Amino acid sequence: VGPEALLLRNSKSTFTSFGVFFLQMGWGDLGAFGEPSKETPNLDQMASEGMLFLDFYTANPLCSPSRAALLTGRLPVRNGFYTTNAHARNAYTPQDIVGGIPDSELLLPELLKKAGYINKIIGKWHLGHRPQFHPLEHGFDEWFGSPNCHFGPFDNRALPNIPVYRDWEMIGRYYEDFKIDLKTGEANLTQIYLQEALDFISKQQASQQPFFLYWAIDATHAPVYASKHFLGTSQRGLYGDAVREIDDSIGKILKHLQKLGISENTFVFFTSDNGAALISAPKQGGSNGRFLCGKQTTFEGGMREPAIAWWPGHIPAGGVSHQLGNVMDLFTTSLSLAGLQPPSDRQIDGIDLLPAILQGKLIDRPIFYYRGNEMMAVRVGLYKAHYWTWSNSWEEYSKGIDFCPGQNVSGVTTHTQEEHTTLPLLFHLGRDPGEKYPLSFASDEYQRAMERISVVVQQHKATMVPGEPQLNVCDKAVMNWSPPGCEKLGKCLKPPKSDPKKCFWPH
Amino acid sequence: VGPEALLLRNSKSTFTSFGVFFLQMGWGDLGAFGEPSKETPNLDQMASEGMLFLDFYTANPLCSPSRAALLTGRLPVRNGFYTTNAHARNAYTPQDIVGGIPDSELLLPELLKKAGYINKIIGKWHLGHRPQFHPLEHGFDEWFGSPNCHFGPFDNRALPNIPVYRDWEMIGRYYEDFKIDLKTGEANLTQIYLQEALDFISKQQASQQPFFLYWAIDATHAPVYASKHFLGTSQRGLYGDAVREIDDSIGKILKHLQKLGISENTFVFFTSDNGAALISAPKQGGSNGRFLCGKQTTFEGGMREPAIAWWPGHIPAGGVSHQLGNVMDLFTTSLSLAGLQPPSDRQIDGIDLLPAILQGKLIDRPIFYYRGNEMMAVRVGLYKAHYWTWSNSWEEYSKGIDFCPGQNVSGVTTHTQEEHTTLPLLFHLGRDPGEKYPLSFASDEYQRAMERISVVVQQHKATMVPGEPQLNVCDKAVMNWSPPGCEKLGKCLKPPKSDPKKCFWPH
Repeated sequence: VGPEALLLRNSKSTFTSFGVFFLQMGWGDLGAFGEPSKETPNLDQMASEGMLFLDFYTANPLCSPSRAALLTGRLPVRNGFYTTNAHARNAYTPQDIVGGIPDSELLLPELLKKAGYINKIIGKWHLGHRPQFHPLEHGFDEWFGSPNCHFGPFDNRALPNIPVYRDWEMIGRYYEDFKIDLKTGEANLTQIYLQEALDFISKQQASQQPFFLYWAIDATHAPVYASKHFLGTSQRGLYGDAVREIDDSIGKILKHLQKLGISENTFVFFTSDNGAALISAPKQGGSNGRFLCGKQTTFEGGMREPAIAWWPGHIPAGGVSHQLGNVMDLFTTSLSLAGLQPPSDRQIDGIDLLPAILQGKLIDRPIFYYRGNEMMAVRVGLYKAHYWTWSNSWEEYSKGIDFCPGQNVSGVTTHTQEEHTTLPLLFHLGRDPGEKYPLSFASDEYQRAMERISVVVQQHKATMVPGEPQLNVCDKAVMNWSPPGCEKLGKCLKPPKSDPKKCFWPH
Repeated sequence: VGPEALLLRNSKSTFTSFGVFFLQMGWGDLGAFGEPSKETPNLDQMASEGMLFLDFYTANPLCSPSRAALLTGRLPVRNGFYTTNAHARNAYTPQDIVGGIPDSELLLPELLKKAGYINKIIGKWHLGHRPQFHPLEHGFDEWFGSPNCHFGPFDNRALPNIPVYRDWEMIGRYYEDFKIDLKTGEANLTQIYLQEALDFISKQQASQQPFFLYWAIDATHAPVYASKHFLGTSQRGLYGDAVREIDDSIGKILKHLQKLGISENTFVFFTSDNGAALISAPKQGGSNGRFLCGKQTTFEGGMREPAIAWWPGHIPAGGVSHQLGNVMDLFTTSLSLAGLQPPSDRQIDGIDLLPAILQGKLIDRPIFYYRGNEMMAVRVGLYKAHYWTWSNSWEEYSKGIDFCPGQNVSGVTTHTQEEHTTLPLLFHLGRDPGEKYPLSFASDEYQRAMERISVVVQQHKATMVPGEPQLNVCDKAVMNWSPPGCEKLGKCLKPPKSDPKKCFWPH
């Protein structure tokens, strides 16, 4: 079934719209994925009405690169969202980052625009905050949200607080105009993001305009927050309150689509940018179920994500897929839904998931696990080979930074960068999803699996053309001192003199 | 709603029958509980048609005591299924055990008999194998299965192979007449147990006889087995093949009840006798999801169990309960369903779950975690206090026996018996189901929770009257040398001279 057929199937109109939810939650945070308090009735219902992906991955265990991969359909090492400052380091876009999404990259909304889509991002952009990186310069028509994380600064003195934008201009800053109470965890932001989504959908429906909504909320990222109505409602504490509010909001968005009569025209996908941040556990961190470690690592806990596709009338209810999927596939799948071809002038890593979603097909494809400039691991079928392991350095670990709390798998959760390129550590993720029992190097099974994997890796490496690394240079002068619109608000700050430096990426 | 009301609600007849499934599977082994391969469609459907219990426990982290607790409604320390040979040791009923279920104990089938029930046990009995302990001496009308585990011996030479009984007499032995291929894992036993169940149900339905079926299969206990049709069908290897066959069988039993038109008269409960045996992982061990450790331990992985109640027309479909439940509750609940009162001359630990199941009530009650003669931990609400910790001894651990592979929570997964009775280790199982982050002793939360818990523990200890320990004495002479029926089969063996000794319980 090609996208034309899909469009024909629509009974009420000829447009197909889609939304994506994207947020820092772990595989194990949903009831449908086994969270013991089972407090996500709306997401569980979304799964029971749609399709659950059990083997779905992000392209990177950290926020910015993962988001760049979603919107470009390309691995961060290709689209520039990585660093070469040191080997195999995670890097992202703090305020002092000089780089951002290159103009040469084609983003999903840029392409959708050609098919008449109106595109909105609500929430965290995270692909660079300097003017040339603004989301409205890269295909989005509307934006409500922030360019960087909300985790600080808090007082707008030594460093500027993170701005919140509406479209081209900032309309306030976190902790000033958009409060997050660090003591109680109270913040109204998810409610604001929800209302933005409902309003946008209503508007597009009224004008019969196909739309792409990228709902990139962040309540489950430390400092975790929830609105008053949800505070104290979860067995899981504040983190659970935030999850409940997100779950409730997603339920409201889906019901809104149904009420407007456009649910059968709207493809919705829920997933996350990286695994739960166990370093923030137990108070501010989620769950990766039984998967090893979490955010920042290339173990399953860092990169296997909860994922649900929902499209009433098209996706069979209660479906379950073992298709190896990746956030980059949302790029290609979305283009397919819109009747567009992916760009042919560059390597696209995402595949079209529609055959898996609509016809239950299984497409053979590998999953690559990168950390910065290094391919750490690869999954082929049920086998995962680690070419490099480390969770973080002894130095960081001794400061209490632990991405694998309570978990120590000898030779796997290493605190030095261990090279296994000549004899990769191999796991069978069916028998051993927790990556605890490496296969014996001497076994026939090891030999057979590695023969297959080696071919995939050789091919990948031989054809890899890395993009220009965007996350190498930091400069305090580029921070959000005076974003567009600051004059009207009287919120412009004076930047210091430019002093570009190599960014320091400890992990 | 009392049991009378329930009986009245039955439209087709006036009897209420019930079944229990009971087997060595972990919390995380079901798709509905987040197993990543999601290969239990029938159990998942049972859950979606019935009620999922998320906070359900066994009474002991080991097989025999747990089964004794199920059938007596009493903690093993009361019904005698424990040892005093050493402090806090797990003990069970191997072939050389002298003890078994005391005559003074009242078993569920004994009581149900008075209400006209026909009772059958299919599978592993495990409450003693000497003549006085025979299940038909304790209320069961029929038996097909074995008195002990199928994990050996295999050659019937130095020691007798475990017999398989039909009712009073043995009809063969494991590895001789009832094959388990230790190389391929092939065995037809689950299919035999399934057919026994279907036949029994048909017979009772035909004679309009209320029944109690205790389906105590053991395919997921090492050596794990599956029948040919299921071998190689699971992503999870042989263990998963066994799970798939069990799942398929349970689906067939439920469908059989529906086909016979008695599903609305039949209360069915699925649960497990202990957590998955991580020591057998990854090839022969299941999953406890994100819970800590497994079988043999008093951490959540050892005692929190998957649990589903199913009773179409009575239990609301898709229900989820956070009622703290225990296998001992099945005793009291079953009596309630049959319109019977629990015995009043002894302490019964099980509670009637019907208010939780039918009316969604939450009954406040503690969960006690015992290891042999020691109360190791207690759960009250969402708090769990460990008064003693240990997983196993350094000596055993150094031999490769590890109940917590890849998991090391400092001060929790101890290899010496650590006493915390003056200042128990306290966990909040909502925020921290993995028992990784003990609360600070100095916190207000710790003080408040321990005040409440201390009262519960004092009361429990003050009124505790331990039964006579049954698992202290072992003697090779009592083994299954010549079970009843052996003469007809020519399978009698000559017992050695009696030489009773203290059993050695290393864990």
